[in-house]
Amino acid sequence: MKARLIKLEEIDTVAIVTEAAQSGDVIDGITLLSDVPQGHKVALKAMKQGDEVIRYGVVLGYVNRNVERGEWINEHTLILPTQPPLSELKFVKSPSVVLPTPKRTTFEGYEVAGHRYAGTRNLLAITTTVQCVSGVVDQLMVRIKGELLPKYPHVDGVVAINHAYGCGVAIDAPDAVVPIRSIRNTIKNPNFGGQIMVVGLGCEKLTVERLLSEAENTKENVIILQDYEGYGAMMDALMQMAEAKLKVLNERRRTTLPLSKLCVGMQCGGSDAFSGVSANPAAGWASDLLVSGGATVMFSEVTEVRDGVHLLAERCVDERAVEKLKAEIGWYDEYLAKGSVDRSANPTPGNKAGGLSNIVEKAMGSIAKSGKAPIVEVIGPGELPTKRGLIFAATPASDIVCGPSQLASGITLQVFMTGRGTPYGLAEAPVIKVSTRNAMKEMWTDLIDFNAGSIITGVQSVQEAGEELFDLIIDVASGKKPAAEALGLNNFLCYFNPAPIT
Amino acid sequence: MKARLIKLEEIDTVAIVTEAAQSGDVIDGITLLSDVPQGHKVALKAMKQGDEVIRYGVVLGYVNRNVERGEWINEHTLILPTQPPLSELKFVKSPSVVLPTPKRTTFEGYEVAGHRYAGTRNLLAITTTVQCVSGVVDQLMVRIKGELLPKYPHVDGVVAINHAYGCGVAIDAPDAVVPIRSIRNTIKNPNFGGQIMVVGLGCEKLTVERLLSEAENTKENVIILQDYEGYGAMMDALMQMAEAKLKVLNERRRTTLPLSKLCVGMQCGGSDAFSGVSANPAAGWASDLLVSGGATVMFSEVTEVRDGVHLLAERCVDERAVEKLKAEIGWYDEYLAKGSVDRSANPTPGNKAGGLSNIVEKAMGSIAKSGKAPIVEVIGPGELPTKRGLIFAATPASDIVCGPSQLASGITLQVFMTGRGTPYGLAEAPVIKVSTRNAMKEMWTDLIDFNAGSIITGVQSVQEAGEELFDLIIDVASGKKPAAEALGLNNFLCYFNPAPIT
Repeated sequence: MKARLIKLEEIDTVAIVTEAAQSGDVIDGITLLSDVPQGHKVALKAMKQGDEVIRYGVVLGYVNRNVERGEWINEHTLILPTQPPLSELKFVKSPSVVLPTPKRTTFEGYEVAGHRYAGTRNLLAITTTVQCVSGVVDQLMVRIKGELLPKYPHVDGVVAINHAYGCGVAIDAPDAVVPIRSIRNTIKNPNFGGQIMVVGLGCEKLTVERLLSEAENTKENVIILQDYEGYGAMMDALMQMAEAKLKVLNERRRTTLPLSKLCVGMQCGGSDAFSGVSANPAAGWASDLLVSGGATVMFSEVTEVRDGVHLLAERCVDERAVEKLKAEIGWYDEYLAKGSVDRSANPTPGNKAGGLSNIVEKAMGSIAKSGKAPIVEVIGPGELPTKRGLIFAATPASDIVCGPSQLASGITLQVFMTGRGTPYGLAEAPVIKVSTRNAMKEMWTDLIDFNAGSIITGVQSVQEAGEELFDLIIDVASGKKPAAEALGLNNFLCYFNPAPIT
Repeated sequence: MKARLIKLEEIDTVAIVTEAAQSGDVIDGITLLSDVPQGHKVALKAMKQGDEVIRYGVVLGYVNRNVERGEWINEHTLILPTQPPLSELKFVKSPSVVLPTPKRTTFEGYEVAGHRYAGTRNLLAITTTVQCVSGVVDQLMVRIKGELLPKYPHVDGVVAINHAYGCGVAIDAPDAVVPIRSIRNTIKNPNFGGQIMVVGLGCEKLTVERLLSEAENTKENVIILQDYEGYGAMMDALMQMAEAKLKVLNERRRTTLPLSKLCVGMQCGGSDAFSGVSANPAAGWASDLLVSGGATVMFSEVTEVRDGVHLLAERCVDERAVEKLKAEIGWYDEYLAKGSVDRSANPTPGNKAGGLSNIVEKAMGSIAKSGKAPIVEVIGPGELPTKRGLIFAATPASDIVCGPSQLASGITLQVFMTGRGTPYGLAEAPVIKVSTRNAMKEMWTDLIDFNAGSIITGVQSVQEAGEELFDLIIDVASGKKPAAEALGLNNFLCYFNPAPIT
């Protein structure tokens, strides 16, 4: 494949090479002055020390020395610009956006009485109040899978909502609200069909009362291990409760539902310079189709949108959303400062190797997955949305923390874009993995569900790839198994706990 | 069983009841003025508002109102005293302590070339650099257990060192040193026989270089998933590496070793008012026997010793230990303050129900498990000791965080005291569970290994129970399986990460 240069906006002063290229190569009229790895940036013109480096039409930073046309621009050449100040963000009524119209407006899902969204899977979830009981629940999972699940063929599986929270924590610390609401809201994820099964120890700080309402906190839904005479007795009680829940879940059937019953999460991890050119714009197009069809789509990752926060504020539909955006991002700025770190802690070494020089460049690519739809609501990590449409859920960018946060907020399916490749998966909701470039898909044929590399090679437009991805999302929501689900690859749940361990 | 009062020191102004008692009951000459639950405190004399409440010979706090002789004293009656200031702690040469002499001075363990301690188990450990790969490693565990382990009968098992760290973190944050050294040192735990198997992704922040030396970072020890052509290829490579390690481990045999090769951790969780009267003093006696015999014993739980830190300083053998104690505890004070919490966040509701009114009372009970031996060294969470003897490892008190920290520091067996009961266990080292009272053992016969309740009922002295527990520790170190190990009950690993998530 012959290398090409991808320039995104007219005013850009750099472009990326679609293939690794050598010093002396002439690509699209530019002679390279050094070897340039795939996805990395090339100066489109000579720049003086301090000049702006522009990509996505946005200033990524300033060159720290004079640069010739055709030079490789990377993290060693760039000085980070100042972070956009939150105080200047204001609600401005923006011109209405015309979104593309989806060809499909329904999916086959599991409705849950009284719930805003429907499930895409039919799972028994067993939630723990505290990590102390996880050993027992792990053994329970083995027994349920071996002895009970085969009797209930309409149930897709059983998942343990094991987590590191619950005790040895300052339960009334101001930030404890984040993990507590995350666990509480996860119990109600539509993929769990409204069935509640909670296992507690009996002396933990995260009491069942903090997770369930009085009406829910019954002996049909809750088992406290300290109330049982030993391991044998507790396992008997747990198996009995699990079977009662499985019987109810086994009666559920998929029905044809409008897209307004679907809630999808967007995330990217192991990003490269193509993320913002291929996979994320394709996901953005699919997201616009979903929103246009009435669905709810969440995107997240505070540190990865921080440098483009003014672009998000411009898309907010009301002042409330802008104020919440400022509050959540401001809280995160302080949280990082308390730990003596700042946004330069991101990107990762792998991101840099993939051509992403700094967090501004990563942010522009990250935001692309949200499409062009207006942002109807901003929520904190693990909070429940109150609207349908495009929602910014202000979670950490860490893949393994963002996933559980979005699950808590109600997603029933996640779309995961990756450039470097990760076997990421969730047991609680199917995850569709989208690669940014052909090489990734060719390398991991059995792990990648959708390749957006065709956009890089010019075989498909963003629109075409986006429509195809939208189709796959509807199919997976309706029961089709993506690779991670078929292979049983699941990350364990890491809820965001910004409060201290005691 | 008739209720008795347990008074610990001559100057104590409260004593605890050994059984639940009713208003009007006369116990050891004192008429109770209200119902008093088991393990709770009774005023031995009338006190005026502001008077000292003394137990263990130490001021637990001050009464917040006038109190009559025979009244129930609990968390609602007590005002917390000021925390001992760290600045006043100084090294003072203390009178030498005479420790009891153990009857056994050897155990049957697995020596590891070049390691200070020997293993008590022969395990294959597979360490992950980042949570992204844990789904693959979980599937690998299933295959190894099914296909490989049966061929290597001298290997006790395989464990995944899965953790929530590795990416989505500020890897160069000042506090990142804690999780990084914890994971790095865990790899070298003697129970893993010096065999190294690390699974990385390829784009994570916690690169293999941060965990292994150049000599260790070889293709025989490390697999990077992004280097393989898909899931099938990575699983083949992983199975091949695991089998190579199993072959080496399968040659290991137990040999008779001096106690100086043993490293034991002490921990308590789900404590009650009896913890400091029965289980912990018995563990303290066993600890003194171990130390006297040349072994290393670690105790931990910063927030639970904070209010007795002056008592620890007095037992330190040199100025270096005292200064390290001040530094570690001071760091923790600041860490809690940053999260807007303080030591009053501990104890738990279960502790209070068990009679522990506040953190001072809990601390006195907690420290009892360290016996009377001098403290030869103080280490930070996840650090390696450089000496043998009694060591204070300054980890959080959270059971599920203290355990992995002690494993990183080299323990090969843990003794876990519990009053309320927890099914806690570690896959990486056997855990002996010690109950504080008969009722606990009677309730959880199949989960508790050793009952120290006989001390409460006067059937055994602390010395007798301590000697019996010491015997059990040597037996378990030599291969005997305690309940959690036999039942396969294991907590997953929560490494302490005080640095921010990004």
